[in-house]
This record gives sequence, C-alpha cells and structure tokens, in this order.
Amino acid sequence: MQTKKFLLSEQEIPRAWYNVIADMAVKPRPMINPATHEPIKAEDLYPLFSKAASDQEVNYTDSFIEIPESVRDLYRIWRPTPLVRALALERALDTPAHIYFKNESVSPVGSHKLNSAIAQAYFCKQEGVTNITTETGAGQWGAALSMAAKHFGLELAVYMVRVSYDQKPYRRSIMQTYGAEVISSPSMSTKAGRKIITDRPNYSGSLGTAISEAVELAMSTPNCKYVLGSVLNHVALHQTVIGLEAEKQMEMAGEMPDTVIACFGGGSNFSGLAFPFLRHNLKDGANIRFIAAEPSSCPKLTRGEFQYDFGDEAGYTPLIPMYTLGHTFTPANIHAGGLRYHGGGAIVSQLKHDNLIDAVDIPQLETFKAATLFARTEGIIPAPESSHAIAATIREALKAKVEGKQEVILFNLSGHGLIDMTAYDRYFANDLTNYDVTADEIAAATAQLEKIL
Amino acid sequence: MQTKKFLLSEQEIPRAWYNVIADMAVKPRPMINPATHEPIKAEDLYPLFSKAASDQEVNYTDSFIEIPESVRDLYRIWRPTPLVRALALERALDTPAHIYFKNESVSPVGSHKLNSAIAQAYFCKQEGVTNITTETGAGQWGAALSMAAKHFGLELAVYMVRVSYDQKPYRRSIMQTYGAEVISSPSMSTKAGRKIITDRPNYSGSLGTAISEAVELAMSTPNCKYVLGSVLNHVALHQTVIGLEAEKQMEMAGEMPDTVIACFGGGSNFSGLAFPFLRHNLKDGANIRFIAAEPSSCPKLTRGEFQYDFGDEAGYTPLIPMYTLGHTFTPANIHAGGLRYHGGGAIVSQLKHDNLIDAVDIPQLETFKAATLFARTEGIIPAPESSHAIAATIREALKAKVEGKQEVILFNLSGHGLIDMTAYDRYFANDLTNYDVTADEIAAATAQLEKIL
Repeated sequence: MQTKKFLLSEQEIPRAWYNVIADMAVKPRPMINPATHEPIKAEDLYPLFSKAASDQEVNYTDSFIEIPESVRDLYRIWRPTPLVRALALERALDTPAHIYFKNESVSPVGSHKLNSAIAQAYFCKQEGVTNITTETGAGQWGAALSMAAKHFGLELAVYMVRVSYDQKPYRRSIMQTYGAEVISSPSMSTKAGRKIITDRPNYSGSLGTAISEAVELAMSTPNCKYVLGSVLNHVALHQTVIGLEAEKQMEMAGEMPDTVIACFGGGSNFSGLAFPFLRHNLKDGANIRFIAAEPSSCPKLTRGEFQYDFGDEAGYTPLIPMYTLGHTFTPANIHAGGLRYHGGGAIVSQLKHDNLIDAVDIPQLETFKAATLFARTEGIIPAPESSHAIAATIREALKAKVEGKQEVILFNLSGHGLIDMTAYDRYFANDLTNYDVTADEIAAATAQLEKIL
Repeated sequence: MQTKKFLLSEQEIPRAWYNVIADMAVKPRPMINPATHEPIKAEDLYPLFSKAASDQEVNYTDSFIEIPESVRDLYRIWRPTPLVRALALERALDTPAHIYFKNESVSPVGSHKLNSAIAQAYFCKQEGVTNITTETGAGQWGAALSMAAKHFGLELAVYMVRVSYDQKPYRRSIMQTYGAEVISSPSMSTKAGRKIITDRPNYSGSLGTAISEAVELAMSTPNCKYVLGSVLNHVALHQTVIGLEAEKQMEMAGEMPDTVIACFGGGSNFSGLAFPFLRHNLKDGANIRFIAAEPSSCPKLTRGEFQYDFGDEAGYTPLIPMYTLGHTFTPANIHAGGLRYHGGGAIVSQLKHDNLIDAVDIPQLETFKAATLFARTEGIIPAPESSHAIAATIREALKAKVEGKQEVILFNLSGHGLIDMTAYDRYFANDLTNYDVTADEIAAATAQLEKIL
C-alpha cells in the first residue's frame, strides 16, 4: 500500500517565514504615494498597519524572518497540515502524473487564512492596539481574523462584501461566534460606503470597496489598525509556512514537484505554497513550473495590465505595482468570492512580468466539474476558490497522460467548501454560468490606470 | 512550551477494532424477534444488513476483529486524528484539571461517522450489494455514508429527518455532491412514511421514523441492504478506532484519563472513545470514570427505562434491550439533531445498568454556552452534539477546581459545527430554549414497552 499522507510533528512547524524578495534578482517596484509619487517607506505605513507588518512589507534583504513563539503556539492548533498523495484522483484520471496536495482545509476555520491572521493580530496586540478592522469576500479571511482577534483580546469590525453577506449567512455567523462585528459592504458607516451606495444603489459590493471602508474606519478610530488578508508582501510572507512544510513533506515522499499550482485571488495562498519552492529556481538552478489559477471572470494575471494601481476601490491605499484590471473593475458574482479582486500583489506581479511564474484562467463551470470529481474521489468537498487549482491540476494531469510523462504536480487545497454548499446546489441545478469578461470591458476598466511603470 | 497536539503516523492506524462484549462479565441481552420472542441470530439479520456486519453484531467472543486493508486505506484520508491538550480552555476555566480532546472533526465530512460508514459500505460492496439505504438526523451520518458509498460505487438513498432537511440545506447538498439521493422523512415513498404523514400531517420527523422508511425501502428493493449509523453493536465496534488511537496518544502525553466523556445519541461516538479505555477497568482493575452526555430533552440513559424496545418508530426492527423513552417518543427540535433518538444501544445500556458507566443530561442552553467558550478558546466551533461533551467536561473541570484535584479529562470532539451555524445564530439572538421533558411525558411514552427484561 502506497503512503497517502505525509505528516510532520508539531516541532517541525517552521521557525521562520521565507521572504522571497531577498532572493529575487529583479525586486518588486516599491509602493508609491499617489500624491507625491515618492516610494513608500515603512514609517508611511505605520498609521495604517502594525509596525511589524509595515517593516516586513518593505524588507528586501532578509531571506528568513523569525516567527514569534506566540504565533507558532497558535499555529499548533492545526499545523503542520498534511501533504496528501491524491491516489484516487490519479486513478480516476488514469494519468501517469503523481498528484500531491497540501491540505490547508484542516484549519479550524477551514482555510489557510489563519496563517497570516494570527501573525497580524499578534503584532497588533504586542503594539498595544485595541481595535482592528478588515474586509472579507466570501468570508474565509474574516472568519480567520475573528478567531485570531478573539484569542488576543482585540475588538474586530469586518466589512463583508454584500453579495457574500447575503448569500453566505453561515460565514457571517462563524465570525459572530468568534465575537466579531460584521457589517455588509457597501455600508452607511463610512464616507466611501455612503458614496457608492448613493451612486449605485444596487451595487453588490467588491473586495475593493470593502477594503476602502475598513481602511477608512481604521484611520478614523483611535488605537485602531487595519489588517489585510492578501495582496501585500507581509501577508505572502506569513503564508510561506505552507510551502516550507510542503518542501519537507515532498522530501518524505521522495519526490520534488515539477509543477506547483494554486488558485489566485490577491496571491496569499499561491505565494504561500510557491515561494519556498521558487527559491530552488532562484538559488539552485531548479526548473519548477508555477501556475497561478485565476477565474476567467477576473483574469488580472492573464489579461490585466502591469501598472501602478490602488489596492481599493476608493483610492485610499498607496499605489501598488501590479497586474490589475483597474481598481474600479467589478468582477461578476462568481462563487469563488475570495478570487474577486482586481489586482495581483507586487511580488507575484513582478515574477509574472519576468516570466518566473505562469498563470491560467479557468471558467467557473470547469472549476465545479473539477471540484465534484475531487469530492467523489478524494472525499473532500473543496472551496470554490481552491477548485480553480484543482481544475488547473486536472488539465496538467491529462496533458501528462497524452504525453506519457510522469510529471509530479503539487497543488494547494486552500480550503474546504462545506460552507459553500449553495454554490454546489446551483451547479447541480444547471444554474451557474461562466461569466466571461470581454477585452472591451477590461480596456474600459484599465483606462484610468496611473501609467507609471 | 507544552505540547498541544499528539499525532500518530499513518502506520499507527489500528489494525483491529475492539469488541468490548468479549470482555464484559455480564453480556448484553440478545436482540429478540418480536413475533416469536426468540433471540436473534446472525442469519436473521442477513436479509437486512451485510453478512459481515450481521456476524459482528452477535460476536460475543473475539476481543479484536481485524480491519480490512481497504477500510484502513480509506481511513488514511484523515486518520489518525489528533489528540489535543485544551490548554486555552484550561486557562479560561482556571482549573487544575488537564483537559484533552480527540479531534474527530478533522474528517472530510466533519465528524466521526465515516469510521463506520466506510466499513459498512465496504462490506456491502464485497458481498455484491448494489444499493443501500439509510437514515440521517442532522446529516452527519448521511454525509459520511454518501462519501463512502460513492467510493465503493454503491447507489445510496438517505431518509433525512424533515426538520433537518428543511433547516440544514447544506447537509443535504453535501450528500448530493457525493452523489446520494436524499428524501425528506416522513415521505410518501414508504408505507411507514405515508401512514405517519396521514396521521400527523405536521410531524417534523424523527430518527425512528426515518429508520422505518430506510428499512422498508431496503427490504422491498432487490440487492439492497440497510446501513445504520449508530445504536448497533457493529457500529460501536467500528468506532473504536477513536479510542484505540487515543489510548496511544494519551501514552505519548504521559497521562491516563481519570474521566472519559462523550455526547450520547445512539452511542456511536461514546462507544468509540470509551470502550478501549473501559477495557482497562474490565481487565486490569483500572478505575476510569465514563460519562455519557445526553440532552435533557431526550434523556434515555438518565430517565428512560431499561427494557426491550424497537429501534424504529414503525416497529420493523428486532426488539433491542436498551434504556429507552419508547420508540414513539418524539424528541423536541433541539439543534443537536444527532442526539434526538429514543434508545441507547444494547452494550451501553447494559454497562449503564451494571454501573460500569455514568450518564448526565444537559440542557440545550448550557451546551451552546460551553460551545461558545470552546470556540473562543480552542478556536474550533463544535457541532451542537459534541457541545454536550464539552459542557459535561466543563462541569467536571470546575468541580476539580473546587476540589483542587488535578483530574485528567478526555472528551471526544465528535464533529465541527461549521454546517450548524443557524443554531448559533439563534443562540446569540436569545431564540433558543431548554426544552425539558416531564416525568409524565416519559411515563406516557414508555407505557407501551414490551416488559421482557
């Protein structure tokens, strides 16, 4: 019998995060101040983020950054997560490829998001902060931060994208059970929210808008910081525990991946799995391929522009150098709410620009077809976000079959779908569509971009 | 830093289930045929259950029964499960007690139910069965069997208690995603269902009724067997992987439990955790205490009668010797749907009768209060069923504090509550009550019992 699961001990939880920027020959461009066009320094970020996160954001030199013991302590609730050989999926596809997945769905909130939520909540607590704000799309990030905030005794307000707030009441309940306040975004509680509600009364919300609201509340509340769940360098940094564990576990399996795949929204789970493996390409001349799997309805890496853009809809954030569809782009209401974001994060965007990683875009129906096959073979119902990685993996495995190639594929199961069952209901009822975007729509949305790069 | 999680390797998944009956001085009474009052033999069960399960049901001699390799292979998807020291809960209670929990919520369907579902589906497949039927309350068992049935290529029909079918659409969707057919019970598809719908048009259903429907469909369908998720001896047997793993893990922790606690519906998770530890009392003169935590609204062990009774509402099953509230007893609509069952299973009932185990009954509001504390300390939102075990654990830990006793408590976290969030919503909205039953109601429901014991 082949070994199916590769487990590490609690002692093998990584002691440091991996900071890929230190090893990149071409560094990501800095964020810039939209008023002055000056590069952003750590101090410029202190009013908004914790000092520790701000410092990490602009750390271009240290390859490894120590994980505080209090953070590792909370990681122990569910980490290390299993690496699993998807033997049943391989059999169903009749492929010579070896398929592995890192199972981040075993966390108490059902996704990888806790990896950064715990770190950021800890830094805020250490620095004497009492209140924090954030945004959430489908609710995975909001649930994670709610759990972390409660642990460290912080008050948390979460702006949840309206379409998810209405369609995913369970996620809202999870945040409330952990003790957080949840507000449907756009809301009347902020200037940014009031403006968009007035301009577009039926607007179903977006991550960009929810970020604007959370930033505004943090900036106008005493002793309050803002915490972001993706996109930024320090979030990618915290997520590297995924790939660092997976590296050791692939060693246990006696293989190294030829191809590493993760779904792509703002970049947090993709970066987390990919960067520790990318290190081997950057440092040791390895030739691993990296594929970011994004939705066809929100294809920033495959069809966006590499330019400076705001991280939020209202334009409160610094300008970030990234592949973007424009910060006013409103993605269709696909069920992978966590992937409904207009831009790609500075590091990943630079890597894509330099051809160090690839991206594919996948239509919604293909992701649910892949998810159903995965559920019926491996037994785990995946989150709609993670299903993009599964679909991309299945494409690769079938290509390997045609080519007769024993390719080793590793993907990230970033979360389970047990709280997304209405999406599956609609899929089985033939009530889902593919929502494509046209070149004209993308051109219109990117027309207002700051042409700085 | 204290170790929090105790993990076993895949190789340490048990190779045999533990059959406690072999070690009991006073054996459970046999099931009997209601028409003849003759004891039931394995052959009498063959028409209904798989042969293997039927043989296990009446095996009074073998202490250990080998787990087939195909079953162990599927167990590897999520087993071994972690044993966790609940350090944060201990701190919150300020108790000298050491609290451990076995985390069965990490299974892909979120509960311990897969342990028996996989075994029973495998036996049916081995014996050439093509179709199976079952019942489900809250949906945990139905989800587990759906996953197992799909793996072995069996067609499955699940009768789901109407109140859960209507209130828990996500569980229904999970079963459908795994490919099962789900029918709201009572239904028009069986004689038993039609009768009860006609007699009581607004009846919200019960496990007893759903069992009647599933049994009737199995008996009237060619090449079809019935599969049960609790109560019976062979189900308890399969669940002992929980306690067998926990035994090794407590050894790793360097402690043995003074008290073992699990919630109690039909007995499957209680038996699974308790029996391997009970062995030390029966064989080695140990003095571990066992507490079954049942809902105050369905208190068969604490306030029922020890008598022969049917396992289902319509009276299709053999008579089972058990603590029961009467097979026509309709439990209140508490959110712990998996504990809404009138009887207690032959082994557990005999053990309770012989004072080898204890039971407590816990009001609904206390379970949600305990669940919320657990979520906010240990980070995991528990299933309403499992919250009964948490509430009983907290009672014990607070008693230990008063007595200044360093008691070691082990409880079973049988499942997570991520699919039960409406229940938490109602709790936070002060919209839940305690639903007690009166002595008169119990007397009325038990009046029709067969007085054979």
